[in-house]
Amino acid sequence: MQDKKLKEQDRLEKQFAFIREIDKEKMISRRTYVSSGKRMENDAEHAWHMAIMTLLLSEYANESIDVLKTVTMLLIHDLVEIDAGDTYAYDEAGRATQRQREEKAAERIFGLLPEDQGKKLRALWEEFEEGETPEAKFAHTMDNVQPVMLNAETDGKAWAEGKVRLSQILRRNGRTAEGSEKLWDYSLNNFILPNVEKGRIKE
Amino acid sequence: MQDKKLKEQDRLEKQFAFIREIDKEKMISRRTYVSSGKRMENDAEHAWHMAIMTLLLSEYANESIDVLKTVTMLLIHDLVEIDAGDTYAYDEAGRATQRQREEKAAERIFGLLPEDQGKKLRALWEEFEEGETPEAKFAHTMDNVQPVMLNAETDGKAWAEGKVRLSQILRRNGRTAEGSEKLWDYSLNNFILPNVEKGRIKE
Repeated sequence: MQDKKLKEQDRLEKQFAFIREIDKEKMISRRTYVSSGKRMENDAEHAWHMAIMTLLLSEYANESIDVLKTVTMLLIHDLVEIDAGDTYAYDEAGRATQRQREEKAAERIFGLLPEDQGKKLRALWEEFEEGETPEAKFAHTMDNVQPVMLNAETDGKAWAEGKVRLSQILRRNGRTAEGSEKLWDYSLNNFILPNVEKGRIKE
Repeated sequence: MQDKKLKEQDRLEKQFAFIREIDKEKMISRRTYVSSGKRMENDAEHAWHMAIMTLLLSEYANESIDVLKTVTMLLIHDLVEIDAGDTYAYDEAGRATQRQREEKAAERIFGLLPEDQGKKLRALWEEFEEGETPEAKFAHTMDNVQPVMLNAETDGKAWAEGKVRLSQILRRNGRTAEGSEKLWDYSLNNFILPNVEKGRIKE
């Protein structure tokens, strides 16, 4: 009995160590403005937004997806950035070392949890990174559509400031349709192309 | 065929109108400091944090809970504050008009969605407010434990600044144990009582 209590206490300590640590994700800034245009959003806000999007938009997935698994994947997929930082989509130099930095971060951060939970979340993160399962593909669709939507909502401010070209956006979104053709079509026609017409995205 | 396409377009427009609108939750500040103590957290960050907590801590629920339902409830439960604002736990005057302000907000915000989805989320929000199902009880446990944990992590800063008394915290947490006795015990012993001893919470 005493032993069981000690084990449970140890498990709770590890879980709360992780829960405290991930609070830092709220300080990791992205390169996307929130809809008011007043500041950039951070990773935690981004994950929250995509989790709700998944709850509402899973009906458009090309293949049937496990919604809880996809939401979990999205909620945790940027935790490695607590150590590795946010690597901007169009920063080629940063992207070269990104994988290694993020692997090390995953080791440390998921390693705070009790072993069973750490392994499970780490595997979900790897699955997201590999992008091959229906859930990972849909999660990537969310990860690409959400900032595109916010950029459109802020009159293309982030695109204009970054002098982003259409070809860069299309390359970045090369696999977005794999998760949902309908959502990619919608994003292209409603968020991206109107900003090319307005000159906020360079051709 | 044409009709089906128009209906789908209309549905997508409504879904994205809601998705754009809820971005505003990122600007609703709470009265809890993030772990660095540098600023208050906002509602979107709070919801993200609790969603992950639920994924990790559901094993301690008094009654078995549907995790996806609980996570969904937590992700959306503060959306009404986009119109109604955050009502501080210890603001008695604000709490008197809170319900009415939030009802009106729910009507408008969930009303942006296609009817089936709007009704579903609205019902989940009502279920949270009523606090009677296992999922709603556990969601309230998360909603109470998360800020208590952050307040402890920041050396009781928010409690000390707000001159919060132990009796207020215990009243506020009157039902926290209904979702999880184990998590309430843990919070009381690890987050609250040490701050009474240190004088950060007034007796």
